[in-house]
Amino acid sequence: MQLVRLVRILSSLTRLASFCSPFSSSAEGTARLLRVGDVLRESRRFSESDVVRYSEVTGDRNPVHFDDAFARTVAGFDGGRVVHGMLVASLFPSVIASHLPGAAYVSQTLTFKLPVYVGDEVLAEVQATYLRQYKNKYMVKFTTKCFTNEDTLVVAGEATTIIPTLTLSK
Amino acid sequence: MQLVRLVRILSSLTRLASFCSPFSSSAEGTARLLRVGDVLRESRRFSESDVVRYSEVTGDRNPVHFDDAFARTVAGFDGGRVVHGMLVASLFPSVIASHLPGAAYVSQTLTFKLPVYVGDEVLAEVQATYLRQYKNKYMVKFTTKCFTNEDTLVVAGEATTIIPTLTLSK
Repeated sequence: MQLVRLVRILSSLTRLASFCSPFSSSAEGTARLLRVGDVLRESRRFSESDVVRYSEVTGDRNPVHFDDAFARTVAGFDGGRVVHGMLVASLFPSVIASHLPGAAYVSQTLTFKLPVYVGDEVLAEVQATYLRQYKNKYMVKFTTKCFTNEDTLVVAGEATTIIPTLTLSK
Repeated sequence: MQLVRLVRILSSLTRLASFCSPFSSSAEGTARLLRVGDVLRESRRFSESDVVRYSEVTGDRNPVHFDDAFARTVAGFDGGRVVHGMLVASLFPSVIASHLPGAAYVSQTLTFKLPVYVGDEVLAEVQATYLRQYKNKYMVKFTTKCFTNEDTLVVAGEATTIIPTLTLSK
C-alpha cells in the first residue's frame, strides 16, 4: 500500500509539473505555441442541476442518472446516480477549445472505466501526442483522460482535431 | 448520378424496413427482446437554443458554435455555426437508454465525418451487432451512426454497453 501511495503522489507531482509547463513562457509576454507533450487541464464537479440540464438538452433520461435506487439495484452502480458519461467526456472538447478556439473535432474514442457520481470532482487532462500541418491548418492528436480523487482514471481515450492555429489562447 | 440516387433510395427503404422490424411483435402484446440486427432510431433537430444550453452545461464555448463568420472563415465550416459534435453524439446513449433503461456505457468511438449545422435534421441510428450474457446482465455492441438529409453519414462509430435486461421498453 505504501508503494501504491508513493506512485500516486509521484503521479500527482508529475501532473502538477506538466500543468505548469505549457504556460511558463506566458510570463515572458510571448505567444505560446502548442507543442507535442503539452498538457491542458480543466477541473469540474457535476451537480444534480448539471445532470438535469444535460438530460433536458440531450433527451437522455436514463434512470441511472435520476433514480438512486434504480442506479444501485438495477444497473449496479454502488454510489447511486451517475453523471452521464458523455457529459463527463464533453470536458475534452471543452478544454481543447478553451485553449485553441476554432478547434474542430475529427474523432474521439472513449472508454468509461469507472462511474462518475454526482458531486465527484473530475480532472480532465488532454495531452498533445502528434502534430502536423494539414493544408492551412494543423492536425493535432491528444490522449484524453478524466480522473476522480486526483488519480483514479475514470474515462480514457484519444481525440483527433483540426485547429486553425497553434497559438494557445491562455 | 442515377445510380447514386437509386442506392440512396434503397438505403432509405432498407432503413425503413429495419425500423419496423424491432417492434412488430409488440402488437401481439408480448415483450420484445433485443436481438442482434435490431435497429433503434431517433430524429432530432438541434436549435440555436439547444446549442446555447449545451454550451452552458458543458462549458464548451468554442466560437465555431456561436459566431457564423468565425465558423466560416477561421474554421472553414461553409454553413456557418456548427452543432457541438458531442451534442450530436449524445443521441447514441439517448436512443439506447430510451429503449433499454439502465444501459451503462462501456465505450464509444466517434468519427465526425461532416459538420452538423444548427437546424439540420439528424437521424441517429444504432444497430445491435453483438450480444452475450455478462454475469447477471448483457453486454451489447452497437454500430452508431448519424445521418443528415436522410442518407448523408455525418457521425459514425461503435458503442459497447452493459444492459440489465434485453426487454425493449418501447
